[in-house]
Amino acid sequence: MAIGEFDLIRRYFRPLAGEGAFDLTDDAAILQLGPGEELVVTADMVAAGVHFLPDDPADTIARKALRVNLSDVASKGAKPAGYIMTVAFPRDVEEGWIAEFCRGLAEDQREFDTRLLGGDTIGIASGLTVSITAFGKVPAGEMVHRFGGRPGDRLYVSGEIGCGAAGLRLLLGETILGPLPPAARQRLIGRYRVPQPRTALAEAVRACASAAMDVSDGLIGDCDKLVAASGCGAVIHADSVPLDPDLVTVAKDDSVLAALLTGGDDYEILAAVPPEDEERFRFMAARAGIAVTRIGELVEEAGAVEVLRGGRPMDLARRSYDHGRT
Amino acid sequence: MAIGEFDLIRRYFRPLAGEGAFDLTDDAAILQLGPGEELVVTADMVAAGVHFLPDDPADTIARKALRVNLSDVASKGAKPAGYIMTVAFPRDVEEGWIAEFCRGLAEDQREFDTRLLGGDTIGIASGLTVSITAFGKVPAGEMVHRFGGRPGDRLYVSGEIGCGAAGLRLLLGETILGPLPPAARQRLIGRYRVPQPRTALAEAVRACASAAMDVSDGLIGDCDKLVAASGCGAVIHADSVPLDPDLVTVAKDDSVLAALLTGGDDYEILAAVPPEDEERFRFMAARAGIAVTRIGELVEEAGAVEVLRGGRPMDLARRSYDHGRT
Repeated sequence: MAIGEFDLIRRYFRPLAGEGAFDLTDDAAILQLGPGEELVVTADMVAAGVHFLPDDPADTIARKALRVNLSDVASKGAKPAGYIMTVAFPRDVEEGWIAEFCRGLAEDQREFDTRLLGGDTIGIASGLTVSITAFGKVPAGEMVHRFGGRPGDRLYVSGEIGCGAAGLRLLLGETILGPLPPAARQRLIGRYRVPQPRTALAEAVRACASAAMDVSDGLIGDCDKLVAASGCGAVIHADSVPLDPDLVTVAKDDSVLAALLTGGDDYEILAAVPPEDEERFRFMAARAGIAVTRIGELVEEAGAVEVLRGGRPMDLARRSYDHGRT
Repeated sequence: MAIGEFDLIRRYFRPLAGEGAFDLTDDAAILQLGPGEELVVTADMVAAGVHFLPDDPADTIARKALRVNLSDVASKGAKPAGYIMTVAFPRDVEEGWIAEFCRGLAEDQREFDTRLLGGDTIGIASGLTVSITAFGKVPAGEMVHRFGGRPGDRLYVSGEIGCGAAGLRLLLGETILGPLPPAARQRLIGRYRVPQPRTALAEAVRACASAAMDVSDGLIGDCDKLVAASGCGAVIHADSVPLDPDLVTVAKDDSVLAALLTGGDDYEILAAVPPEDEERFRFMAARAGIAVTRIGELVEEAGAVEVLRGGRPMDLARRSYDHGRT
């Protein structure tokens, strides 16, 4: 396109810049912490053909790039505190596309109370890659880890599992889900393109969870990681896992349910909550307006996540979706 | 390649992880600040065919990606405090290539006393993109900005200008530099592939500079940005600009000197130093082992950088090299 990097930044990115970004006119931003605060730092990169489809709307690509990072921040019990973004645009990108991309970011900045701190844009021959480093603040020592879960802790997830994976399958024209009402199709595709980070749940996670992570590569495979870090095992009751209402019937088929439990792109929070904190966790989640569902518990047997349906182990051909497989 | 993201991280990236990174086994890292410290945050993305050539050695690509960011940190007067890296690898990358890439990072982490805090790797169809967000620490309020320079301040640059641009021209087979000794060719190509961040100069910059930035898009164009932010102008004495000894003769030609002054990929520090701090700046730079050269001064006339050679204005067809032009 005809616009250079400097005009691009001035016209479209500068309006997104917040406190500490110096209007994107310096080489660096400044982040300050209050007394007793620590900074949580996380990064995810998304690319065309890997995390979104090349012809997805520009604003949804931007929002997904930001939201997958906000999801990590929330799962650590942290409050959003700005982000750095680097983007490799195809050289023939149109200015209107970038305007839409930035409009999506502006909307999400308002919704999740965060701000652009800086970054970089480059032009490449083809493809589109967005890398975001997101910051969050927590009181010192209170970041919630993947480790820390103990046998007996209850396993909870926020929202619904499998919507993003279902949306991707619909976009790819796969038929495993059978016919669905048009409204359900649109809703599931929307969940794939624009996940819902559980920022409002961060306080409950920090106050009550012994361990937590966001579910991005599939519930079962991610639970494997949580129990590996925590040195214990887990039992997941597959029939308890919350699903989109329009998927409940088709998910009676084991292979469909397995696809939803291992498909990734959920960006929900998986949290282990000690029994004595369970009531408070449910109360705080309800107050935050986020549905949470108990789906199992941590057990002694180290390293194993058993998935039961009707009391019998489910046969899972795979446990996660590997976005990063190279 | 045959290795998945998780094994890739475990085998090659985990050994790079430092304090606060939790061995790359969590969703986020933790950064702490001492009392009265602030965090300087900067990010640069580099891509094949834009900042390096696709067949450049893997270790030099990694080192350049890290060093261009360390250069920004140093130019703000900050001490390195870790970095986040996201990489989009081509799916057919070989494991040995990644091993070399990480070896380069490990060497530079030791040289510049920094550490990997976290990140993400993804596989894409083709191309290679590396995005790094680098952190630095400064005493609160002491980050050096592009603004802050005042008429009368002396303009200094570290090292030599034009080596990176010369190296790129040699790699591209351009003949503007004429014949050069093989050792000079190798040195200049090396400067393009592996720039030298002036981390050791950060303390002098912080103590003495009224404004500073790193020179990445060409000395003249970057000086334009410094004076625009500072609300003044500058005069640069082109004959004072330090050059590689093997380029001095060929740079007697105005068009060659112009190419070196506007070519980019220097990653040297441009600093404005008030007259009363000049002696201390030179002393601190010498103690740090970094050559600094006075190349001009800031003047009243806002927004104009005049480049004089033999007392007459040089004719510059362009003022900078736009890596990001899309």
